[in-house]
Amino acid sequence: MIARTGSVKHVTSTANPIIKAVRALHQRKSRAESGLFLAEGHKLVLDALAVGWQPEMIITLEPEGDTPVAKLAARVRASGGDVVFTTPSVMEKLARRDNPQTVMGVFEQRLAPLDAMRGGTILALEAPRDPGNVGTIIRTADAAGAAGVILVGASADPFGVEAVRATMGSIFHMPLARADDAAFAQFLKRWPGKVYGTHLDGAVDIRTIEASEPQLLVMGTEQSGLTDEMAARCDALLKIPMAGQADSFNLAIATAIALYEIRRPFL
Amino acid sequence: MIARTGSVKHVTSTANPIIKAVRALHQRKSRAESGLFLAEGHKLVLDALAVGWQPEMIITLEPEGDTPVAKLAARVRASGGDVVFTTPSVMEKLARRDNPQTVMGVFEQRLAPLDAMRGGTILALEAPRDPGNVGTIIRTADAAGAAGVILVGASADPFGVEAVRATMGSIFHMPLARADDAAFAQFLKRWPGKVYGTHLDGAVDIRTIEASEPQLLVMGTEQSGLTDEMAARCDALLKIPMAGQADSFNLAIATAIALYEIRRPFL
Repeated sequence: MIARTGSVKHVTSTANPIIKAVRALHQRKSRAESGLFLAEGHKLVLDALAVGWQPEMIITLEPEGDTPVAKLAARVRASGGDVVFTTPSVMEKLARRDNPQTVMGVFEQRLAPLDAMRGGTILALEAPRDPGNVGTIIRTADAAGAAGVILVGASADPFGVEAVRATMGSIFHMPLARADDAAFAQFLKRWPGKVYGTHLDGAVDIRTIEASEPQLLVMGTEQSGLTDEMAARCDALLKIPMAGQADSFNLAIATAIALYEIRRPFL
Repeated sequence: MIARTGSVKHVTSTANPIIKAVRALHQRKSRAESGLFLAEGHKLVLDALAVGWQPEMIITLEPEGDTPVAKLAARVRASGGDVVFTTPSVMEKLARRDNPQTVMGVFEQRLAPLDAMRGGTILALEAPRDPGNVGTIIRTADAAGAAGVILVGASADPFGVEAVRATMGSIFHMPLARADDAAFAQFLKRWPGKVYGTHLDGAVDIRTIEASEPQLLVMGTEQSGLTDEMAARCDALLKIPMAGQADSFNLAIATAIALYEIRRPFL
């Protein structure tokens, strides 16, 4: 249903097979089968184009005159992508919410091979569950100048709608790899630099390390932190100092503090 | 409907007026009228009791034998609070989700007066919209050892269910004040220490300041950062260094990085 033909279609019904296929991208299964994902918003589609990531399709309301949306549609068609003009109510159905963005883009998922994660600071997440956290962490890794993010094991899908939304465009900037635990363990054996884990029982105050790249930071799950197996693979377990009565951090917060700390000399 | 009588009730119907009153606490209006809020989870109720914050009421399933829930119920009654035993389906209705927590607590909202925000590091949020962000930030402020959080202007309700959930118990630890913009502006005139704002166009690299307490950090909204009026009240506008292609941070992430940085010498 979704294939680059450089064509324009007008669709008014949610029963239309294209609309059904796009809407199905809210489901992980459909994303896995099609290899596609949905990114909402005019700005996000422009961000993607700016880094050479062409949409398969955009869906939007038919513009009147030479508007920014008309320009975007022409640009997408010129790159071989499809343009679907539709109605506000179909847009709401596609976005699954009121007041949807004016443009939805359908893109091909891109994952880097694990061995492309080579230099700089690499962030690895052990089985993060929450899609919003995953998206926010990808955005933060981008801002902190990390070179890539590896999702290890049973992770939330970074290409889910909520995750992509939380990346605020960094899904198009940040090299992303996936690995099962065994492949990641092998990868760590070949990793040339330090491997840091963040741990509530960590022995090393995060402010005391002398960061040098390449380096890799592993963060555990929201619920229970790093597994013992993963902790054992780390060269040092870092502790983020805590002063109050809170006994843990939100995963995205802990990741941000730790990542900024080890990237501190390079920013 | 909710008043401390130290009694035990058995309720099986969602039409029961107590259940209706508790369920209404999902609405901001009902929270404002009653001055109450809902905190989910056995651990959270224990956290509250540990710091002397007695629940008005807990709602739970009737325990069989001398379980932790039975002990909790006895403790709540001894402190003058009510205990309501109900059914799993009523618990789901109260929580508005599947697999709800086993205990729900109803508590009185507590706000500190603005002038109680005096020493240490105080965090102020200008009109944050997202309840999850507000809750996560309160949790982070607690972990970073901030002395209090001020919500300025049209803020999301920190006592909303989603916000309370995200605080992971810090709602019971962190002194919280609210102020409209005019009152906050007056407060800042009396504030004895530095006032920092975080701003995408900030001139001062956050790593270069010499933090000393008392100090106050103001964060702007998710969408547009600090208002010009608020920025003008700051002694310095701080910039969090960014290395990648992301052009902004999630509000909770930016707050965490900035707060940890100015609390760095005190942790």
